Amino acid sequence: MGRILLKDTKLNDRMVDILVEGNRIVRIADHIDDGVAQTIDCNGMYAVPGLINMHTHSAMTLVRGLGEDSPLKVWLDRIWSVEAFLDHEAVYWGTKLAILEMIKSGTTCFLDMYWMADTASKAVLEMGMRAVLTYNFLDNFKEETAEEQKKACARLYELSKSWPDRIRFATSIHADYTTSEETMQYAKRFADEHGCICTAHLCETSQEVEEDVSRYGMRPVAHFEKLGLLDSNMIFAHGVWLNDSEVELLGKRGVTVVHNINSNLKLASGYRFRYQELRDAGVNVCLGTDGAASSNNLDMREAMKTMAMLQKAWRVDPKAMPFDELFRVATVNGAKALGIDAGRIEEGALADIVLIDTKNPEFHPNYNFLGNLIYSANSSCVNTVLIDGHVVMLDRKVEGEDEILENADRVAWKLMKLSKNI
Amino acid sequence: MGRILLKDTKLNDRMVDILVEGNRIVRIADHIDDGVAQTIDCNGMYAVPGLINMHTHSAMTLVRGLGEDSPLKVWLDRIWSVEAFLDHEAVYWGTKLAILEMIKSGTTCFLDMYWMADTASKAVLEMGMRAVLTYNFLDNFKEETAEEQKKACARLYELSKSWPDRIRFATSIHADYTTSEETMQYAKRFADEHGCICTAHLCETSQEVEEDVSRYGMRPVAHFEKLGLLDSNMIFAHGVWLNDSEVELLGKRGVTVVHNINSNLKLASGYRFRYQELRDAGVNVCLGTDGAASSNNLDMREAMKTMAMLQKAWRVDPKAMPFDELFRVATVNGAKALGIDAGRIEEGALADIVLIDTKNPEFHPNYNFLGNLIYSANSSCVNTVLIDGHVVMLDRKVEGEDEILENADRVAWKLMKLSKNI
Repeated sequence: MGRILLKDTKLNDRMVDILVEGNRIVRIADHIDDGVAQTIDCNGMYAVPGLINMHTHSAMTLVRGLGEDSPLKVWLDRIWSVEAFLDHEAVYWGTKLAILEMIKSGTTCFLDMYWMADTASKAVLEMGMRAVLTYNFLDNFKEETAEEQKKACARLYELSKSWPDRIRFATSIHADYTTSEETMQYAKRFADEHGCICTAHLCETSQEVEEDVSRYGMRPVAHFEKLGLLDSNMIFAHGVWLNDSEVELLGKRGVTVVHNINSNLKLASGYRFRYQELRDAGVNVCLGTDGAASSNNLDMREAMKTMAMLQKAWRVDPKAMPFDELFRVATVNGAKALGIDAGRIEEGALADIVLIDTKNPEFHPNYNFLGNLIYSANSSCVNTVLIDGHVVMLDRKVEGEDEILENADRVAWKLMKLSKNI
Repeated sequence: MGRILLKDTKLNDRMVDILVEGNRIVRIADHIDDGVAQTIDCNGMYAVPGLINMHTHSAMTLVRGLGEDSPLKVWLDRIWSVEAFLDHEAVYWGTKLAILEMIKSGTTCFLDMYWMADTASKAVLEMGMRAVLTYNFLDNFKEETAEEQKKACARLYELSKSWPDRIRFATSIHADYTTSEETMQYAKRFADEHGCICTAHLCETSQEVEEDVSRYGMRPVAHFEKLGLLDSNMIFAHGVWLNDSEVELLGKRGVTVVHNINSNLKLASGYRFRYQELRDAGVNVCLGTDGAASSNNLDMREAMKTMAMLQKAWRVDPKAMPFDELFRVATVNGAKALGIDAGRIEEGALADIVLIDTKNPEFHPNYNFLGNLIYSANSSCVNTVLIDGHVVMLDRKVEGEDEILENADRVAWKLMKLSKNI
């Protein structure tokens, strides 16, 4: 088993050495001597747990910046026009681009909702990332599509047996306004029967809530409840439009809700995310970036800042969303939802570690490291990243970076031409 | 006169060479040969005009991160407890730290409202920055203080005659709730008589508006109008709480209003900044970061993103605040308010140029450079900065950087000890 020794790193303002063996943190102490381990000099750097991006559509990096400042309908039409030409090559390089960006901004694990997860899994595997990849159900209320998707889901599940433990299978339901009730129940049942989680979009826009009332005679949360889908195995993205009784019910059922503040702001979906009420009701609240089509990056550190700023602003309370609690939202809460023993730097935990370089002016003075990291820094402070006990970025260098950028650009422009967007 | 040739730089997606002579851009063409000029290889980099930070309190970098997540009163008490011990050494290094941070995030000019501008001017001079430094009037309604400040203002004005053209003198009025009417009028008259601008805080919080109604029987805009202070020489910071008739009046008088979105969010002052109404009324709207005490950095690129996101969100309109217009808010609008021939890359303009490196994943694919710069990048993309025709940062290196960080830390911790904050 490989051994890595992080020498002279700061952990909560204490200088320590951290020893990693295999994929776990095995020892944290003032001084560790180890003749065999690969030693990384962490002088001046702080160790923090890797951020966990709980909602994204990774290969959508390929449509970053398309249809800026457009009405929602125009924007969606442009995105869809490109996605119609997606192939495995595009998903492969688009996912690699996404992972590259996530690693460079300190994310060590992500929950993906996108197409061709078999191809995405190759990108995740090769880059040493940790991820939960989903088979995504979206049947447009067509029985034939639903049947095809059920078979494809089973095939992906079979394939997933060959994945290492750092890549996990899950199911996703695009949304209850795009997918039939029977398929939604199938997706959740498949997840339960195979011991994995299920994720879905929920209450992203007020229009979506109104549509459900027209279509089903009830709001989305009531609809999911009627179908028996609300439990601690369910992870909902967005949850911007929730009333008091819905917050209470989601808490009682122990679901996870993933806030995607940058996407919600940019698409003007809504910004009054009821963090405190959800937390107090017992909901496990996490953070995500959404896809680069809407957010426009996959920068979880930036997302933390935006979340804090908006919680303070709309509640008219500068005390809202303290930074230490926010950091847990972006780390341990995600790990908990995914059932992964990460999100913390402790002996025994998975070695998903981010080393933060504080040499940039934004970290001076450094009365308050975590405050500086969230409110003042930009993500270029992420210097070195370990995932599952392996170094995936050292001194801001990721293996194969140039090749990824080159190929992602190539397939992106090809998609643009095929879809006549240029 | 020095000559600098920027070779193979992209300007609005066109590949050009840019020749700088003295402090001006003298030629932009497909190919320029110059045997004498210092040549900078700009391959892969985009040239953009430097950002103009129209409201900050620069040496407040020294209290960055102090009193995070506190109620406003507790936060202010902590800030003031430190400021009580400010000396020239602190202002010198605090201002240098601020300038270092601004240069590294692409800002080439700032309008400062702080104490000891004589000392700040040394920091600006030595670092090659462009700035407008103000004598700040805040008399707490005490006649004696007012008289002292008038003399100090005259002394600073005399000193400013020795400054090079890239450093300008102006006056500032802290606010109408801290400064007597007579002193406010004096500050503005001094500015007018000496051909410089005057800046003041205005309508940052709703409490401030209510206080004016109690104290003066009128709201702040009416109060400034009564005193005859509203004209195109007046630059107001904040303007979050303005009603329709106030927007109209400010437009008619041709004032400038500086939006400081990150500070307004973090202190929960208000976020419904009426950009469109102000613009349509004829107000020159600019962008600022406010001081690092509240914002918590001086990153104008980040401020652009936050401004766009919030305009879209609270107006429930994804079309609001298009990125090209936003970029003008952060550049030419500032130059116009300060009467400086910058904010644009054109032959004849001042050579305040920022070179953006697009090698980071956030710029891939690059369908939309300006969209990527504002929405996707972080400010480490700023590679090289020219101010007034001089290279102040080359390949992210600023001369004397380590010395600045070291000394800023030293004086910051000294202030913390003196003020018993540690």
